[in-house]
Amino acid sequence: MTEFFKNIPQIAYEGPESGNEFAFKHYNPDEVVMGKRMEDHLRFAVAYWHSFAYEGGDPFGGRTFDRPWFGEGMAKAKMKADVAFEMFDILQAPFFCFHDLDVRPEGADFAESKRNLEEIVDYFAEKMESSKTRLLWGTANLFTHRRFMAGSATNPDPDVFAYSAATIKSCMDATIKLGGENYVLWGGREGYETLLNTDLTREADQAARMLEMVVEYKHKMGWKGAILVEPKPQEPSKHQYDFDVATVYGFLKRYGLEGEVKMNIEQGHAILAGHSFEHELALAASLGILGSIDMNRNDYQSGWDTDQFPNAPHEVALAYYEVLKAGGFTTGGTNFDARIRRQSLDPEDLILAHVGGMDMCARGLKAAAAMLEDGRLEANRAARYADWDKAENATMLKTGDLESIQARVLSEGINPEPRSGRQERLENLVSSFV
Amino acid sequence: MTEFFKNIPQIAYEGPESGNEFAFKHYNPDEVVMGKRMEDHLRFAVAYWHSFAYEGGDPFGGRTFDRPWFGEGMAKAKMKADVAFEMFDILQAPFFCFHDLDVRPEGADFAESKRNLEEIVDYFAEKMESSKTRLLWGTANLFTHRRFMAGSATNPDPDVFAYSAATIKSCMDATIKLGGENYVLWGGREGYETLLNTDLTREADQAARMLEMVVEYKHKMGWKGAILVEPKPQEPSKHQYDFDVATVYGFLKRYGLEGEVKMNIEQGHAILAGHSFEHELALAASLGILGSIDMNRNDYQSGWDTDQFPNAPHEVALAYYEVLKAGGFTTGGTNFDARIRRQSLDPEDLILAHVGGMDMCARGLKAAAAMLEDGRLEANRAARYADWDKAENATMLKTGDLESIQARVLSEGINPEPRSGRQERLENLVSSFV
Amino acid sequence: MTEFFKNIPQIAYEGPESGNEFAFKHYNPDEVVMGKRMEDHLRFAVAYWHSFAYEGGDPFGGRTFDRPWFGEGMAKAKMKADVAFEMFDILQAPFFCFHDLDVRPEGADFAESKRNLEEIVDYFAEKMESSKTRLLWGTANLFTHRRFMAGSATNPDPDVFAYSAATIKSCMDATIKLGGENYVLWGGREGYETLLNTDLTREADQAARMLEMVVEYKHKMGWKGAILVEPKPQEPSKHQYDFDVATVYGFLKRYGLEGEVKMNIEQGHAILAGHSFEHELALAASLGILGSIDMNRNDYQSGWDTDQFPNAPHEVALAYYEVLKAGGFTTGGTNFDARIRRQSLDPEDLILAHVGGMDMCARGLKAAAAMLEDGRLEANRAARYADWDKAENATMLKTGDLESIQARVLSEGINPEPRSGRQERLENLVSSFV
Amino acid sequence: MTEFFKNIPQIAYEGPESGNEFAFKHYNPDEVVMGKRMEDHLRFAVAYWHSFAYEGGDPFGGRTFDRPWFGEGMAKAKMKADVAFEMFDILQAPFFCFHDLDVRPEGADFAESKRNLEEIVDYFAEKMESSKTRLLWGTANLFTHRRFMAGSATNPDPDVFAYSAATIKSCMDATIKLGGENYVLWGGREGYETLLNTDLTREADQAARMLEMVVEYKHKMGWKGAILVEPKPQEPSKHQYDFDVATVYGFLKRYGLEGEVKMNIEQGHAILAGHSFEHELALAASLGILGSIDMNRNDYQSGWDTDQFPNAPHEVALAYYEVLKAGGFTTGGTNFDARIRRQSLDPEDLILAHVGGMDMCARGLKAAAAMLEDGRLEANRAARYADWDKAENATMLKTGDLESIQARVLSEGINPEPRSGRQERLENLVSSFV
Repeated sequence: MTEFFKNIPQIAYEGPESGNEFAFKHYNPDEVVMGKRMEDHLRFAVAYWHSFAYEGGDPFGGRTFDRPWFGEGMAKAKMKADVAFEMFDILQAPFFCFHDLDVRPEGADFAESKRNLEEIVDYFAEKMESSKTRLLWGTANLFTHRRFMAGSATNPDPDVFAYSAATIKSCMDATIKLGGENYVLWGGREGYETLLNTDLTREADQAARMLEMVVEYKHKMGWKGAILVEPKPQEPSKHQYDFDVATVYGFLKRYGLEGEVKMNIEQGHAILAGHSFEHELALAASLGILGSIDMNRNDYQSGWDTDQFPNAPHEVALAYYEVLKAGGFTTGGTNFDARIRRQSLDPEDLILAHVGGMDMCARGLKAAAAMLEDGRLEANRAARYADWDKAENATMLKTGDLESIQARVLSEGINPEPRSGRQERLENLVSSFV
Repeated sequence: MTEFFKNIPQIAYEGPESGNEFAFKHYNPDEVVMGKRMEDHLRFAVAYWHSFAYEGGDPFGGRTFDRPWFGEGMAKAKMKADVAFEMFDILQAPFFCFHDLDVRPEGADFAESKRNLEEIVDYFAEKMESSKTRLLWGTANLFTHRRFMAGSATNPDPDVFAYSAATIKSCMDATIKLGGENYVLWGGREGYETLLNTDLTREADQAARMLEMVVEYKHKMGWKGAILVEPKPQEPSKHQYDFDVATVYGFLKRYGLEGEVKMNIEQGHAILAGHSFEHELALAASLGILGSIDMNRNDYQSGWDTDQFPNAPHEVALAYYEVLKAGGFTTGGTNFDARIRRQSLDPEDLILAHVGGMDMCARGLKAAAAMLEDGRLEANRAARYADWDKAENATMLKTGDLESIQARVLSEGINPEPRSGRQERLENLVSSFV
Repeated sequence: MTEFFKNIPQIAYEGPESGNEFAFKHYNPDEVVMGKRMEDHLRFAVAYWHSFAYEGGDPFGGRTFDRPWFGEGMAKAKMKADVAFEMFDILQAPFFCFHDLDVRPEGADFAESKRNLEEIVDYFAEKMESSKTRLLWGTANLFTHRRFMAGSATNPDPDVFAYSAATIKSCMDATIKLGGENYVLWGGREGYETLLNTDLTREADQAARMLEMVVEYKHKMGWKGAILVEPKPQEPSKHQYDFDVATVYGFLKRYGLEGEVKMNIEQGHAILAGHSFEHELALAASLGILGSIDMNRNDYQSGWDTDQFPNAPHEVALAYYEVLKAGGFTTGGTNFDARIRRQSLDPEDLILAHVGGMDMCARGLKAAAAMLEDGRLEANRAARYADWDKAENATMLKTGDLESIQARVLSEGINPEPRSGRQERLENLVSSFV
Repeated sequence: MTEFFKNIPQIAYEGPESGNEFAFKHYNPDEVVMGKRMEDHLRFAVAYWHSFAYEGGDPFGGRTFDRPWFGEGMAKAKMKADVAFEMFDILQAPFFCFHDLDVRPEGADFAESKRNLEEIVDYFAEKMESSKTRLLWGTANLFTHRRFMAGSATNPDPDVFAYSAATIKSCMDATIKLGGENYVLWGGREGYETLLNTDLTREADQAARMLEMVVEYKHKMGWKGAILVEPKPQEPSKHQYDFDVATVYGFLKRYGLEGEVKMNIEQGHAILAGHSFEHELALAASLGILGSIDMNRNDYQSGWDTDQFPNAPHEVALAYYEVLKAGGFTTGGTNFDARIRRQSLDPEDLILAHVGGMDMCARGLKAAAAMLEDGRLEANRAARYADWDKAENATMLKTGDLESIQARVLSEGINPEPRSGRQERLENLVSSFV
């Protein structure tokens, strides 16, 4: 046992009336919601990078956190892992997620980085034998090191493509070895700083080919996990190719990958792309590519990725409403891609931020389930489109053409009268659940 | 001849040193640029709606313009047409564009609206016999009337779908009759105000089916013009389905329409979607769907569609650079989807706004052509990716897999060293042309 | 009794468990919160413009609502008033607010507009004898008519300044006659479309002089109401002078008006200016100029003023927290500057939107009161600054200078160690109340 | 001579036709514009932080630049200074600007940091004896070190206030010693991450007191330089108190400092605050507080501070137009608060970015001067307001009251007819100069 969290108890459910800061008020893992345990619905994951690798820097300031595991070398990496698994235990977190760079020291060359990752993966595997926490997903950090400054798969330098492919293989191997349920690709450098030096056609082909290789390797390994792409419109790059769900869908269709790849959707990224979180979730569900979520919140008054813990009850409820409506998570889950503010220096801050986030998600899930079980929202939606279910209208949609339809409009004198969209009534209905 | 423009002369090219407000300083229709007359490159169109139908209103204020043709009835519509063709003549505009609602009185029912359109189309046809101005594109206004408040093709009410189809047929017929070179669809109400009452799956299918009918009708009529979709992310709706080029591409792929439909891309819509104009143009070119442009500018400090005339030389140059690089316009052209400010009350304002816009585009075209002829920008781009042209790298991209590539990274000790992206040097190069 | 709301009952409080759409679940006017009736805390007002004058138009579409009182003439204006007071009664609204243009027909000249206003004010006064609803504030619409297109007080044309002054006098007279508690100025055209034709110095002086005249007239009339300025950064103008609370404060200080004028602060305007609502409220409170609020919400994904009814529990709670911390409203109140969406066609939509908004505000007020009574949030804030209350630090702040402080830093080796800001813990605390 | 720039020549003016990348095409220091040498108008400064201290990091990536002077200790700091003065010489830069942290190693405590600064200031002083480059302004970095994470003057911890005051004294001493013409304060941490733990009233008082101490010390030292505050709305903090020019003006008025402090205005910060650069400049000029400018550009599609070199001719022209109209710089100048992109790795990139920026500014200055000398823009502006110069209108503005004005509107039947704002014609006029 390390010293870091030494006075912090394991968090238990105490109910909404509890005044104990170190207790769940809403997240009760064993509580059954719509026929499933809450833990099995939400499938919470702790993000290794924000909780253990982020040092508190921002574009105008350096490290604020003072963690005993900061520094070089494998011993520090193992101390970090020790603390991480203690935190997973304190939170009773069912899952975690990681990038290679979060967990292992960067080596002098690829071979050393690979060996370092393998060593830490073995260390994780050992710890996981006595932990309830499993791996939701692994991924490769192909954006922090300067070699990736102009992209990984989309780099103008084929050697960077090669280095990236080699790294992805290592990270997929690690994910598979640790029993991960998904493998995620987020292309923070797959984009451009200026169109003036960029060849969009080449870069798209390169990105697609890398994704194909990932899919091929998955199948070759017989691995059953899901391949997930995480959209984000910009930051760090001026423009990123995986702008939003619709853009990635078009990309998958273009290269015939839409049956192989799903989406990992983040609230903050949705906001930056000009969408609501529920829009991105609903769209992915409609397109059959909803995979997993990165739960956080973006500050609506900031133009960059703030990765804060969620605190808007109605927004979280609407997000889980889309997840539940789509059938809930299969391999996916709720990864907290959220970090404590750089002024939140204390170990307590790190734990309590997660406790608050988990409680907020539990509230959202319960509200979403109640709305679905209530049924009025879906009934209203269905009623609004009910005329399309009539035979003549279904036929018009299926086999109509402009000429015959115009003829009918003329002969029948069709002159449609609009009907209320009832937005505020529906908003009131939602408010009654959150 | 009407009274409206009575003291305004036809605009002629006088060169950059001219001090005459009523002259072109840069737009010289007959000047040859890259082997083609400037007029044939730019293919300017006047937008009927902004120039003749817009009354000067905004969300907080009513009509400011006081035009003799404002009002009900066919006589007013014909007076409007008379003024419009006088303006085309003053500007020597090679093209114009229109919606049905811009040009004909709304009828009491569809039949009357149809007859009104046919009457005005005949009137146009007659005027065009003695005018050099041709039709760049026609379109249907499926967003202003209250019947379309919840969408046209995507409406929950099948009767609105039918009414829309009937209207589109009329507008396609008008476009074909007038010799139009394109037919445009902009779906300002094809989206939603709230996801709470919206069925994304149904609405996408409806939108796709309507677009298919349009394509089918085009082929049935043997018409050779292009079908263009115009993306816009939002406004008037909270969210619109044709968000941006990438989104529309995904939609076309989803329904197998990518070979039939191209894009009409607007600067202001690109900005609202979080992109630069040149990004949207370059992306459409890369995807093989660049059709035509709506030239205007959006105020970067305003969050809505301001539709102003262009005045940023470097931005216009970069836009035409993408157009020229893609081979220039075929059926497409430069439609000024731009309106004078509501305080610009005078007939002179309307003419001179276009003169300024045409000159700005001419400057942009010439700068773009000079950059292409200079060749350094493209040479730099090609050099940046040159290593991909080497056989071993082309092979890796084509047939590589993660395992063999990782093996090579290990065996060869690949450790890529980044190279400068030279952004500021390229920006300096561009600046030397604008 | 008109026909408009004929099947809609008066709304009564039924408590959170009620399933009745036409009941308050949270707003219980007589419930005592922090020693005051909820009605007296919240002081709800219905906005005449959104509820009765807005026709459902937007920048791309015309009227969607079909109200029997739409049209010209005094009879229609009186029918509108009849419906309005019926709605006030249905909602048991303690207050309403209006512009002159909302309530009276525009006359052919100023004299006629003045007479029309006087007639309708008399009609209101009569109705108010049998109504519980009073006037929260009146104001002049100096932005809709084309004469105001380039500003009212700040117009380059002195005649528009005069016309505006004359109009304001009429509206202040109406407000006083009806027992209004505040008079509001919102300067939607006090700004510019282009800096190229604008003289900032002249326009600021003009705006200040008009505001002085308003203050002088208030005192001359012996009226005890408050003069309120409502900030908004832009829309309809590209830039408006009353950008936000801080900007208006600077303007008031510049012209010595900070003791005479307070702020009417709107959520949507705060958002458009890049602030949170609670920021603007807290700042105004800190500067001693918090007057009243326009409650609504802006769509965070839209770049314009959406004026929707509030539905974010935590945001509304934080807003009332600032109001309560500042001592609550005196002359001010909660005006719903919110309109139903243009697709919300039915009378029920209009009523239920207000019911939902009032309930949301009641939830916010109760949560805010509970947070204040709990005291932990304020205790944490005070503790964070506690060292400033030590004598040596208070002295340093009062009388220190750079030299003596540097000498002390050197001699004492001051090397401050940062302390946690505890943001997430405070957010969790807030979440436990909403 | 260091090795860093060894193959790069001193940049000389060669005129617009030059094809030499390493030459000025527009910036000709000795060319006389409006009676003053261009160098004396523009007063270019190189920013030490971006050019020599920035390592190429961003929120998702680490150092990309590989500079021989990166590292700890005084020897590296002196090597950095050697390179800096070589670059000043290559560019023939008349000025530079710096923070303490840019130029000296951070010490273990304040005393050591102070000694380090003094040592490097002596080193600078020595180098400046043989250099033409002078100091435009100095400033203190009170935002990077973790001690400042919750503010410097506005910190809840009085010791941080003391540490900040001590640091400012050192930096003012350094500025005075090196003959600096201004001292700048930018409060990147003077704001908040969450209002929940913030006391706006205390923090404003603290910020004001610090600014008073700065002013007092300036006078005590008999220094004639200007004290400048640099507004920025946010980033790194969620909200910063010095939001924009109008906000800082209100703050200065509140504390009676408006006669002692001027503004250092940055293009990128103006954009982030929702303004144009020319707006902020014109407003500061109108308020009599225009001091100096930080020239750069913000990417309009990015929501954070991108600090790029300017490349928009018309925007730069409009900025200098406001500067010239205000009488030009006195102590102020044009500081390039701009950095090369993190992919611009080469020494050439650093030099050529500045060459491009200087040329762009020279173009802007010449265009601005030509517009002023032409006079049409100002003549149009004056004409627009000319009626206000008539005696009766001047009197109305000075001594009118609502009652007498209303009486006059009634008796004279004043019914103003709007006049064209001529925006597009003015934009065309501007375009003819850029």
